[in-house]
Amino acid sequence: MVGGGIGSFIGPVHRRAAELDGNIRLVAGAFSRDPAASRQAGEAYGIDVDRAYPDYETMLREEAKRTDGIDLVTIVTPNDTHFAIACAALGAGVHVMSDKPATATLAQALELSKVVKRSGRHYALSYSYTGYAMLREARSMVAAGALGTLRKIVVEYYQGWLADPVETRNNRQAAWRTDPARAGIGGCIGDIGVHAFNLAEFVSGERVAQINPELQRIVPGRILDDDATILARFANGATGIIACSQIATGERNNLRIRLWGDKGGLDWSHERPDLLTINWGSGKSEQRHAGWAGLTADAHAATRLPGGHPEGFIEALANIYSDLRMAILHEAPATPLQGIEEGVRSMSFLEQAVTGAADNDGWRRL
Amino acid sequence: MVGGGIGSFIGPVHRRAAELDGNIRLVAGAFSRDPAASRQAGEAYGIDVDRAYPDYETMLREEAKRTDGIDLVTIVTPNDTHFAIACAALGAGVHVMSDKPATATLAQALELSKVVKRSGRHYALSYSYTGYAMLREARSMVAAGALGTLRKIVVEYYQGWLADPVETRNNRQAAWRTDPARAGIGGCIGDIGVHAFNLAEFVSGERVAQINPELQRIVPGRILDDDATILARFANGATGIIACSQIATGERNNLRIRLWGDKGGLDWSHERPDLLTINWGSGKSEQRHAGWAGLTADAHAATRLPGGHPEGFIEALANIYSDLRMAILHEAPATPLQGIEEGVRSMSFLEQAVTGAADNDGWRRL
Amino acid sequence: MVGGGIGSFIGPVHRRAAELDGNIRLVAGAFSRDPAASRQAGEAYGIDVDRAYPDYETMLREEAKRTDGIDLVTIVTPNDTHFAIACAALGAGVHVMSDKPATATLAQALELSKVVKRSGRHYALSYSYTGYAMLREARSMVAAGALGTLRKIVVEYYQGWLADPVETRNNRQAAWRTDPARAGIGGCIGDIGVHAFNLAEFVSGERVAQINPELQRIVPGRILDDDATILARFANGATGIIACSQIATGERNNLRIRLWGDKGGLDWSHERPDLLTINWGSGKSEQRHAGWAGLTADAHAATRLPGGHPEGFIEALANIYSDLRMAILHEAPATPLQGIEEGVRSMSFLEQAVTGAADNDGWRRL
Amino acid sequence: MVGGGIGSFIGPVHRRAAELDGNIRLVAGAFSRDPAASRQAGEAYGIDVDRAYPDYETMLREEAKRTDGIDLVTIVTPNDTHFAIACAALGAGVHVMSDKPATATLAQALELSKVVKRSGRHYALSYSYTGYAMLREARSMVAAGALGTLRKIVVEYYQGWLADPVETRNNRQAAWRTDPARAGIGGCIGDIGVHAFNLAEFVSGERVAQINPELQRIVPGRILDDDATILARFANGATGIIACSQIATGERNNLRIRLWGDKGGLDWSHERPDLLTINWGSGKSEQRHAGWAGLTADAHAATRLPGGHPEGFIEALANIYSDLRMAILHEAPATPLQGIEEGVRSMSFLEQAVTGAADNDGWRRL
Repeated sequence: MVGGGIGSFIGPVHRRAAELDGNIRLVAGAFSRDPAASRQAGEAYGIDVDRAYPDYETMLREEAKRTDGIDLVTIVTPNDTHFAIACAALGAGVHVMSDKPATATLAQALELSKVVKRSGRHYALSYSYTGYAMLREARSMVAAGALGTLRKIVVEYYQGWLADPVETRNNRQAAWRTDPARAGIGGCIGDIGVHAFNLAEFVSGERVAQINPELQRIVPGRILDDDATILARFANGATGIIACSQIATGERNNLRIRLWGDKGGLDWSHERPDLLTINWGSGKSEQRHAGWAGLTADAHAATRLPGGHPEGFIEALANIYSDLRMAILHEAPATPLQGIEEGVRSMSFLEQAVTGAADNDGWRRL
Repeated sequence: MVGGGIGSFIGPVHRRAAELDGNIRLVAGAFSRDPAASRQAGEAYGIDVDRAYPDYETMLREEAKRTDGIDLVTIVTPNDTHFAIACAALGAGVHVMSDKPATATLAQALELSKVVKRSGRHYALSYSYTGYAMLREARSMVAAGALGTLRKIVVEYYQGWLADPVETRNNRQAAWRTDPARAGIGGCIGDIGVHAFNLAEFVSGERVAQINPELQRIVPGRILDDDATILARFANGATGIIACSQIATGERNNLRIRLWGDKGGLDWSHERPDLLTINWGSGKSEQRHAGWAGLTADAHAATRLPGGHPEGFIEALANIYSDLRMAILHEAPATPLQGIEEGVRSMSFLEQAVTGAADNDGWRRL
Repeated sequence: MVGGGIGSFIGPVHRRAAELDGNIRLVAGAFSRDPAASRQAGEAYGIDVDRAYPDYETMLREEAKRTDGIDLVTIVTPNDTHFAIACAALGAGVHVMSDKPATATLAQALELSKVVKRSGRHYALSYSYTGYAMLREARSMVAAGALGTLRKIVVEYYQGWLADPVETRNNRQAAWRTDPARAGIGGCIGDIGVHAFNLAEFVSGERVAQINPELQRIVPGRILDDDATILARFANGATGIIACSQIATGERNNLRIRLWGDKGGLDWSHERPDLLTINWGSGKSEQRHAGWAGLTADAHAATRLPGGHPEGFIEALANIYSDLRMAILHEAPATPLQGIEEGVRSMSFLEQAVTGAADNDGWRRL
Repeated sequence: MVGGGIGSFIGPVHRRAAELDGNIRLVAGAFSRDPAASRQAGEAYGIDVDRAYPDYETMLREEAKRTDGIDLVTIVTPNDTHFAIACAALGAGVHVMSDKPATATLAQALELSKVVKRSGRHYALSYSYTGYAMLREARSMVAAGALGTLRKIVVEYYQGWLADPVETRNNRQAAWRTDPARAGIGGCIGDIGVHAFNLAEFVSGERVAQINPELQRIVPGRILDDDATILARFANGATGIIACSQIATGERNNLRIRLWGDKGGLDWSHERPDLLTINWGSGKSEQRHAGWAGLTADAHAATRLPGGHPEGFIEALANIYSDLRMAILHEAPATPLQGIEEGVRSMSFLEQAVTGAADNDGWRRL
């Protein structure tokens, strides 16, 4: 991993995601430009601290010497460094998972495209939303022609956390995103608009052919856009809207995609990622849920749990493990463990319920 | 881990959850009574196959000899074996995370309670639902008196997967759950009713004092209940309903808890685990979302992501990593990687949008 | 109309509902036992004040003398008077629409049953919920066997307005409902529980054969129940729950019915009366909306508007008429009329949009 | 009423809405250009057939001679006739409620504006959506500054009923709306886009200053637009989107408005008209329901029922009256009346529940 030091939001998320299925392990990293901070992060992540390097160049060089050196690098650094790191990693024969954007400029992206092809290595962008099972269901349905000819595609991505000039108040996440020197030419459109754009093409399978963009700088003092609406025309003739905002006060992370073909329409919202609504031309309205046996193969392949278990079920159980670990380490967990006392209670409930119901004699003490 | 061999549903879920935060690692297991199957599972899990044991007794004995032996064992075997394994593990000085139910009978549970106390080890039941951040918010709010005096508690847990006699049609999950020899005295009530019961006490902080149970065997041929409604009276005088069913055709995993005090009511449903609705006595209705800065400390401690990111976000990103891994291993992922081509597209979108909006000249090609 | 004087809640609702389709007109009434108050109400309702009678006996006698006398009487008086009024009206050859309960006691109800049969007149109870189109859809689907054999029926009706002892604080609606002298033997169960019961039988077409009731008096000082849960066994063997509460703090008027058969389950909630959710045994989930062309004949017959127009659309338009009337009467409406100025704005918008889009020349002033 | 003959959709809606509160009565009309058809409609509406005129000119002339002549005329004719009728009515000293659009062209609207002013009569447009209580709540909140400075306004109005070329298949509603000769210059934008535009200005209290329109003709053969997205800039500097479509397959009548100020955001959707969601800048999320005691005065003035009764409650009760009327007329209602038999059942339920609960003796027969 390059980047993702102590205090990073996205570093731990990538680590957890990468390791979730047990096939990938974090073993090395250049977590910070500060060698001590990088080692500290390595320690926190539980890796061999000798593999917590001061910079990515050293990491790539040293890892190449090992028989158990890294196969894959995750890039979670500021946008302006993605290009150089990706090129170096690919040059060293290492596969790449890069945080978006791929690069700081279109010219770099075109250049990187060539580097990828020459390298024979894999290069992936972590457009996380494309990983949701129900968006893959949507994509498969569209590809199979279930909606008929696509006519209209509307993606919106509304957040409200930049409704105030928080970048002037020590908010690090806001500071670099509103600074052209670090964020590049796009503010809101670069941060979240490209997610909306990517999703429009990912789910529809269609290419945006033309855009008519309207960008706004709403909060006084902003240099980059904090709100944007882009009218789109797709290559197949469909019309569309790609809208994003970071000044939609009170919105959390409201990503939504709707597509309409001549046979029906699809509706997916990040607020209920396990659900896909389909409104058919007949007037029938259908809801598909993650885990349903009737989903397409692609959606199945992206599902770890049976129907009715929201995708956060693993995190919930992970919290129980975290509590137990804290208890073992003599750190009081915020929430008490459900332990043997609760086990006894449940067994008591069970026995009284079963025998009570059989005897049909009304109320019983527990 | 004891149990959780190839084909198990809950084994991989426990592994992922235990390892999610990077502080716990699966290193040994007795995954199956069949030694070859246990080794095969060990291999699949990527552990040292010498630590994939043929039975838990061997595992506990051999691990005790190692300086890096196991600290914690997860028990995911059939219900009737939980008691013996937990006793053995605690006797060997190992902490325990047990799948519910704690034991097969109330008598065993009371016995295990003594064993736990003597052992000085931690014993936890994996009541996964208690790990949801918004249920911890609910619990904290109730404990802080936000609802006033609790008056009414309604928990329902409705599933439909046993609406047909699938246990007669090679459904392994159904077969043991409907078999008294393996499931014990309770069918639906033992499988999911105890979750509802546990949640009622966990969130309310109140104890059920009396129950008036009604159990049904709806599907012909069933020996154990497949539907139950239990009227409850709580120690503090509150009234309640604990309802569960596995013949509620079409329901997935519909767990819901509502509590009303004299100041307000809470509503949480597993179908939207990130959301907690509060209806105040004033008529105001409030919705709290996971990740909100105003949540209680307990809810915060159970949160890994900022607001608006559903708890399944990590799984979504994990799917991207899984796709990349498959590509690297020359296995075609079901869904194409978002790679450099998409990176170029996004940069093109971004540049055209920003420059187009600045020039205010209408439509531009992409 | 008998009852429904100035200040009544249910009187005007009945008047509006009765007259909605233009086939029934309010022409006479005994709106109050106080002759002056009755005349005053008659005036407010815009009827001939000579037909605003001091009591129902006079009304029935005088109207019988007219060639244009009343055909139908609506009874919206306190519960204990329903029986006598209904008997008198039927005796006078007038059809009856009675607010529920039919009578104050079961004995009276059985007696009234004979009176109805002898009279040859129609007698209807205004169980308003049975009028919703989507509940009629539900009923028709069940009757046609769409759900297969019914197995489980759960109706809940939760309100919170009696969570405080408002009957001691000048709340007239609460006062009579909590007073055994006026409300009869049932509090919450008599006020709303019977609606839940009626709906269970109406939609399912099945009869409740046995009940196991639990009634609570939660708010100190109450003589009648304010919360009840009734376990039910239906004649066909289905199991059920009929639950109601008026101390569910924060709940408004939360009536919900769910039914499960061996082929699927239905879910309807008063909070979204235009919607019926069907979860099929196959795992498919369907949503039907009022006005859909594919609804059953019964549901169609109960629909006045095309799909997507919530049933309150008529009230919304009625508000516009009300505003206009106030303006005409020189009473300032709370909300300004949408008049010719708005008409000009809209036409300007329309022309600029159409010509602007044709010219494709970007921004235009409005 | 001018227009609204037999078979009309909007005529009966206007009649019901106008008469709902009992202050306005339909007494005369020119329901059709065909004198016989007009009389037939008059008969169906239950008015004096001598006041069912062959044309509006005759109606205005004849009614002016009566002491009880009409005060108000409702215009529900095709768009191209609105102007002439409104001018004639105002000229005759009659107030006007006109279906939108006000006129066929902007020039006519400006002319009509002068006529209204000279006439001293009231002229109202039936923008029905502005009658919803919760939109009036929204408007009042914005006007009171609850959201702070408005920054972004998004209105969308999506329908799917023109996704197929139904105008070629005998669909009268579609035929005139897609015909420039009758509908004027706008298709979708004229039919529903102006509603969205009107709502944007009504709720926000702000004026659209500039628009950048994109109109589409998606279904082959269409001359007028059937889909439109208009970027908007408001006079106060806020940015906005006004989107409408009639080819959004599967959508019913999906009107939604969202507004964001620097303090919070509002969200209202026609699919749940009784609900207003407010997302505050603090991260708090609030839901307000029609009938809540804490609503603004404007919202209260537009409410006929207490909280929790959806605005369609009156229609539901009207269905019960309609069933009773059919029974009286010896027409079998689609749904059986809830009559004395159900009354007896309910009383039996009530008595058994209350006495059974008191005796606490378990199950009782009903």
